[in-house]
Amino acid sequence: MAIKVHGSFFSPATMRVLACLHEKGLDYEFVPINMGTGEHKKEPFILLNPFGQLPGFEDGDVKIFESRAITQYITYTYTDKGTPLVYHDPKEMAVLFVGMQVESQHYDPPAGKLAWELTIKPFLGMDTDEAVVEEQEVQLAKVLDVYEYRLAQSKYVSGDSFTLADLHHLPTFHYLMGTRAKAVIDARPHVRAWCADILARPAWQKVIAMQHS
Amino acid sequence: MAIKVHGSFFSPATMRVLACLHEKGLDYEFVPINMGTGEHKKEPFILLNPFGQLPGFEDGDVKIFESRAITQYITYTYTDKGTPLVYHDPKEMAVLFVGMQVESQHYDPPAGKLAWELTIKPFLGMDTDEAVVEEQEVQLAKVLDVYEYRLAQSKYVSGDSFTLADLHHLPTFHYLMGTRAKAVIDARPHVRAWCADILARPAWQKVIAMQHS
Repeated sequence: MAIKVHGSFFSPATMRVLACLHEKGLDYEFVPINMGTGEHKKEPFILLNPFGQLPGFEDGDVKIFESRAITQYITYTYTDKGTPLVYHDPKEMAVLFVGMQVESQHYDPPAGKLAWELTIKPFLGMDTDEAVVEEQEVQLAKVLDVYEYRLAQSKYVSGDSFTLADLHHLPTFHYLMGTRAKAVIDARPHVRAWCADILARPAWQKVIAMQHS
Repeated sequence: MAIKVHGSFFSPATMRVLACLHEKGLDYEFVPINMGTGEHKKEPFILLNPFGQLPGFEDGDVKIFESRAITQYITYTYTDKGTPLVYHDPKEMAVLFVGMQVESQHYDPPAGKLAWELTIKPFLGMDTDEAVVEEQEVQLAKVLDVYEYRLAQSKYVSGDSFTLADLHHLPTFHYLMGTRAKAVIDARPHVRAWCADILARPAWQKVIAMQHS
């Protein structure tokens, strides 16, 4: 098997890559990396990702890291498989590029910090920092106000098709929906409907099922 | 004239877009936005960018924001003009996608904070926060250690051609080179040589010249 994902079923960035592979219907080998023993900070993993963060990815002699780079590589390499996930018309691509940047530059910072404080820290037995949660909920609300406006105009964040710009949100949305930050999503009807729609995708359900395997 | 850039010659994100237009040899109209009077937080600018951040960009009926989305739009739309800036072979694209993500996820956070503390805050008459500078210099050093290793293997961050992955670093490098954070760059010979090489590009020199026009 050519494709290998080195990661954890609970790591948001690993889940992002797995979602893409399942949307594309591609086979892959999963190589579990134990963060508890610091395996991601040692060789051989750091030869794959010098920043020591999950996941790492191999496709034959292509060895890369950074989840959003991996999803783009998969999508542009396996164009004729599964869900297209990108556009090829320049005007549609323009909106896709914006959607992907907005996710990583605006949505992910507060969403990632909230997921850390409200799900991962409690899981690790650490105390949630309430001040951080309050501050980041305000930030997330501001960002989702922009999403609400955009999602009133198109079904997905970058037009009328499900693309990488939507897919990249899935792991953080999944974690936030199990916390009180769900209220920030639910307060915005178009965001709430879009979030429910993308979380229900069969490819994503398969990724979640792996957490319980 | 079809292309319009709404921004400021001193805004790093605006400079990133201008660098791309000059590499491509494209004509454009520059529409100055006065941040001093808060023009970027009001209509009509926020109709172009709902997050109220420079720059905004128009190319006919394409109206987008986020500097790294704009540079990708320009590059994939005007493929046959000027410097290619991207690859089309999947293996080369893989390395390009990683390089672009590393810039925005690893390099830019400390570099952007240092540029803010060491150049923009003093310019605005605000006090530099020394604790932030020290912390971010440590972060930047760690990231540039990875760059040093990679740049020993290829002339540019994503292979042997100058691409968007290099170009996106230019505005922050330009600002940092005028500060004490230059020492973090200079301490790494491959990083220093690469930085000097890309800052000397004629397209970039034209962007800098506009600050003195």
